[in-house]
Amino acid sequence: MTSLIIDTDPGVDDAFAIALACASPEVDLLAVTTVFGNAALDTTTRNALRLLALCGRDDVPVARGADRPLVHPQVHEAELVHGNDGLSGRAHTLPDSGRSPVESDAVGLMAALLRDAPEPVTIVPIGPLTNIAALLAAYPSLRSRIARLVIMGGALSGGNTTAVAEFNLWSDPEAARRVLVEERLPTLLVPTDLTFRCRVDRAWLDRLSAAGPLGATLVGLTADYVAHYTTFFGEECTVLHDAIAVAEAIRPGLLRTTTYPVEVDCTFGPSRGALVADRRTPEIIATFGSTLARAVDIATDTDVDEVRDFLLTRLAG
Amino acid sequence: MTSLIIDTDPGVDDAFAIALACASPEVDLLAVTTVFGNAALDTTTRNALRLLALCGRDDVPVARGADRPLVHPQVHEAELVHGNDGLSGRAHTLPDSGRSPVESDAVGLMAALLRDAPEPVTIVPIGPLTNIAALLAAYPSLRSRIARLVIMGGALSGGNTTAVAEFNLWSDPEAARRVLVEERLPTLLVPTDLTFRCRVDRAWLDRLSAAGPLGATLVGLTADYVAHYTTFFGEECTVLHDAIAVAEAIRPGLLRTTTYPVEVDCTFGPSRGALVADRRTPEIIATFGSTLARAVDIATDTDVDEVRDFLLTRLAG
Amino acid sequence: MTSLIIDTDPGVDDAFAIALACASPEVDLLAVTTVFGNAALDTTTRNALRLLALCGRDDVPVARGADRPLVHPQVHEAELVHGNDGLSGRAHTLPDSGRSPVESDAVGLMAALLRDAPEPVTIVPIGPLTNIAALLAAYPSLRSRIARLVIMGGALSGGNTTAVAEFNLWSDPEAARRVLVEERLPTLLVPTDLTFRCRVDRAWLDRLSAAGPLGATLVGLTADYVAHYTTFFGEECTVLHDAIAVAEAIRPGLLRTTTYPVEVDCTFGPSRGALVADRRTPEIIATFGSTLARAVDIATDTDVDEVRDFLLTRLAG
Amino acid sequence: MTSLIIDTDPGVDDAFAIALACASPEVDLLAVTTVFGNAALDTTTRNALRLLALCGRDDVPVARGADRPLVHPQVHEAELVHGNDGLSGRAHTLPDSGRSPVESDAVGLMAALLRDAPEPVTIVPIGPLTNIAALLAAYPSLRSRIARLVIMGGALSGGNTTAVAEFNLWSDPEAARRVLVEERLPTLLVPTDLTFRCRVDRAWLDRLSAAGPLGATLVGLTADYVAHYTTFFGEECTVLHDAIAVAEAIRPGLLRTTTYPVEVDCTFGPSRGALVADRRTPEIIATFGSTLARAVDIATDTDVDEVRDFLLTRLAG
Repeated sequence: MTSLIIDTDPGVDDAFAIALACASPEVDLLAVTTVFGNAALDTTTRNALRLLALCGRDDVPVARGADRPLVHPQVHEAELVHGNDGLSGRAHTLPDSGRSPVESDAVGLMAALLRDAPEPVTIVPIGPLTNIAALLAAYPSLRSRIARLVIMGGALSGGNTTAVAEFNLWSDPEAARRVLVEERLPTLLVPTDLTFRCRVDRAWLDRLSAAGPLGATLVGLTADYVAHYTTFFGEECTVLHDAIAVAEAIRPGLLRTTTYPVEVDCTFGPSRGALVADRRTPEIIATFGSTLARAVDIATDTDVDEVRDFLLTRLAG
Repeated sequence: MTSLIIDTDPGVDDAFAIALACASPEVDLLAVTTVFGNAALDTTTRNALRLLALCGRDDVPVARGADRPLVHPQVHEAELVHGNDGLSGRAHTLPDSGRSPVESDAVGLMAALLRDAPEPVTIVPIGPLTNIAALLAAYPSLRSRIARLVIMGGALSGGNTTAVAEFNLWSDPEAARRVLVEERLPTLLVPTDLTFRCRVDRAWLDRLSAAGPLGATLVGLTADYVAHYTTFFGEECTVLHDAIAVAEAIRPGLLRTTTYPVEVDCTFGPSRGALVADRRTPEIIATFGSTLARAVDIATDTDVDEVRDFLLTRLAG
Repeated sequence: MTSLIIDTDPGVDDAFAIALACASPEVDLLAVTTVFGNAALDTTTRNALRLLALCGRDDVPVARGADRPLVHPQVHEAELVHGNDGLSGRAHTLPDSGRSPVESDAVGLMAALLRDAPEPVTIVPIGPLTNIAALLAAYPSLRSRIARLVIMGGALSGGNTTAVAEFNLWSDPEAARRVLVEERLPTLLVPTDLTFRCRVDRAWLDRLSAAGPLGATLVGLTADYVAHYTTFFGEECTVLHDAIAVAEAIRPGLLRTTTYPVEVDCTFGPSRGALVADRRTPEIIATFGSTLARAVDIATDTDVDEVRDFLLTRLAG
Repeated sequence: MTSLIIDTDPGVDDAFAIALACASPEVDLLAVTTVFGNAALDTTTRNALRLLALCGRDDVPVARGADRPLVHPQVHEAELVHGNDGLSGRAHTLPDSGRSPVESDAVGLMAALLRDAPEPVTIVPIGPLTNIAALLAAYPSLRSRIARLVIMGGALSGGNTTAVAEFNLWSDPEAARRVLVEERLPTLLVPTDLTFRCRVDRAWLDRLSAAGPLGATLVGLTADYVAHYTTFFGEECTVLHDAIAVAEAIRPGLLRTTTYPVEVDCTFGPSRGALVADRRTPEIIATFGSTLARAVDIATDTDVDEVRDFLLTRLAG
């Protein structure tokens, strides 16, 4: 049994990620915490509540987190991909949850859960890393209560939000640096390079849609999102970034990793928010040195069809 | 009655600040929280416990906070001023407290106190602003529970740690930016420009030393610190930075303020950690515009002798 | 006899500076070179030609220099002070020169003059430092042909263009860094702190205006400029920044200097373009170290009335 | 006939580049100008003279250029690749030229050649871009005299000097930005991604070595350089970066190009010196916008064997 907290900014692909966790019997979903990102915090929080209602999991507590980055203000551009309501304009197709977030802030809830859990907890951050950075800065004594961080974010060869930066890291580079570079927790980073390779096509979406009301509702959220990625890739498809990270959290080892020295670009230059990974050979790094002192496991390969089947089987379940 | 939390990195002048709060009947000292800064966290925490023991206040909870800055690592230089033990090598002259910090991290304790206090609480951060930034990032819902921030930090005309940066802001510029620029809490910043003007001379120290054992012990901590400031100013004196901020927290209005648009320099250039305050006339700012959107009250003047007398009367008390 | 090249972006106060050089018998004015700054390059070049015509010095060659900063684009704001034509809308009151700039670019002309001059030449840059940086980068072998740089620029305690940056340095910080920090030429920097103190009042302007047609024309250029500084200082006055630098070039020692370690802020943060000067005591700098390795002579004091009299006598002459 | 100026910091691969230009009948080699880079300026200048002597071209003028970057100091690391003498410790195997550089600085010589040439001139910068930036900043009127810039530098997917930066751009990012982003000259950039693909193996080197004394001497220079690249690629080979750029200058169209919006990272963060190229699809860039306003032609493909044959045929002469 994997005790899991999902920190999220739903978001179309976040919807699939939450549904996957709910559909997985080996997961004890302790909480869903929310953060600004794909939409404003009020919207992502409401979406999280609705998605849990859709999955019949109104027992899972939802807590509101950060409505802004850790240090510097950041401009939202995610509406271009996820729509004003974060769900391609289809948020209204979800059931109304009828409940509110818990009174505690997201970090307070995470801290309490970490403190009380019998075993260390896996956290899967699939939005900007603001809540996680705040948690680690506020509660250094709880670091040992985290079993693993499986983070969706970063890009090795070209960004999706700027030329070199991926959306989650770009949305709060300082928080990302705190979590990825300053901390030394067991961490696996799932970058867009790999999530792009795991993209699903029309046939996959049709099979999920036909499998039942949950699948149909999820696929119904993707209309605009599919259009975006069809433009991006030149073929009809969509990318389920966040669900890939949750899949790895549920089934550790599903993704194959490479360890690279990394930094997060926190300047205000053209590389702001980029994951800087040193992919030169160890011999070359040894010769020239590297200022990138923190080695992080990055998911760089997988059996793509196995991932697609795993997602489909669980969500169609 | 002013409910007060002091967030501190003792530090010689922090010692005077804590003693002042303990000696002030109108203060309900809810907690002392610690942070790295003038020395490493273990040292500043031990010093906080000992200083409270010296003041006979073992009832005040002490909680450990951040052992590093919010985002980027920072080099310590404070040992040059405060010595390896943070107290000019005189920490051993303080009583051993016999107790430990509370189990909760500093932010957790602050959050609980804010939540439970009948009235909003004044926080006086007199070290790097890491704990306060983490508190505000982790607990946005508790902002309204803070009555006032009285912060010792920043410099308007020349730094004490670099050419342009004061030690507390320089030690964690990102945290300082979060607290001073991103938040909109009632805030008063006490910069070195004013604390330098309130410096005390040998006669003042001698009077305090003669007043009793507490005064004598406090003055005993200042040997190296006095030497440092005597070099700095060319006359025998010392500067009680943090105690000036606590004095204002206890007696609001003791310091006179001017409101300036400000920023905190978070670059890695020569101005890193500087308080950037726009002191041009409002007419000029209106003409040229200012990118410094946040107006902060900065303590720029006071009756210097009144401040010195207030400190002496209380501490000698 | 002082061989002089003025590098300039006229500009109201540049007009006084050029006129002062023309009116000074101990000056051999080798050339006037132009740069963008107070207005676009076409405008500053035309103004330079007209000002020399006004002074009866059509023998002095004028060469066009940089129309943009060395590395990064920069936004013009000077029109707010100097008007669209760089001369408070009064450029049309100057005689038309009838001649064109020389065919050579400014740097080419400066290089030829330095190479051919029997004695090293004094250069007085009173605009953005782009041409001078390009000269030094392009012609390292001619460094020894420069007797002295007397530069108008920088601010020690508060900027005139941003909170901390003065206009000339702010307009091209990278060029300023090259000239002030990387080069080791005999350099005197005249900051706004001193030029502000040398401001002239209505009586001074009236006396100059009454002295003859040159004085009357110069004062006629200042209408809007006086209005700006009257707002700035709260009293009717104007500031002749660039003329103070030329006065020092003509009469070395007129200004008293202090030597400070300096940097130029080349980040894109809130301090961009600032002169960062370390004004702490040498003992403190020795203790804490300074990353500001280049010591520059900065004009920090003068006999203000002597300066005003010198300017009036020469310009009225 | 292509009129050519090579701006260079020899350097092993620079040696092949110079020899290629000398061996090409369609080239009128107007000058070789030198810059710091693979070694200090004195060394690169001496190497340039010796290489021209080796090629029997003592008629080609050599001029000394920049001994440092345009704005900020930079640390040399090239000795690790090219040895202390810039030529793998084999500079002594070259003939002594007996002559000196011309008296003019590099920029002065380039300016004179551009001004006097009957047709616009192709410049091939194969070292740090300092001289070219200084030329363009100093002589804006000569821009139209440049037919084309064929620049060796930059990397699209991983650097050779830092995680993300290639040596030539990293050595002077500000100069690179001036040339690549601010100027709008016909420019082709040859990045390491392509030069790596054109690497030559032991058999190629052996054939060149057997072809005659010139080939044998050139191959003799590569001992350490081959060792470096054998480590880098895990197979015995070497990379002739600069010669690929000269080959394209001689035979325009040899390399196939893609046009990307670009920036050069001039921050002091982990991406300093990186070529930031926006390789997202035009549709995505249109949706999200790009702050990278300057589109540059980048060599991204070629017939690799044709390039190798061209080099071998010419150098084997």
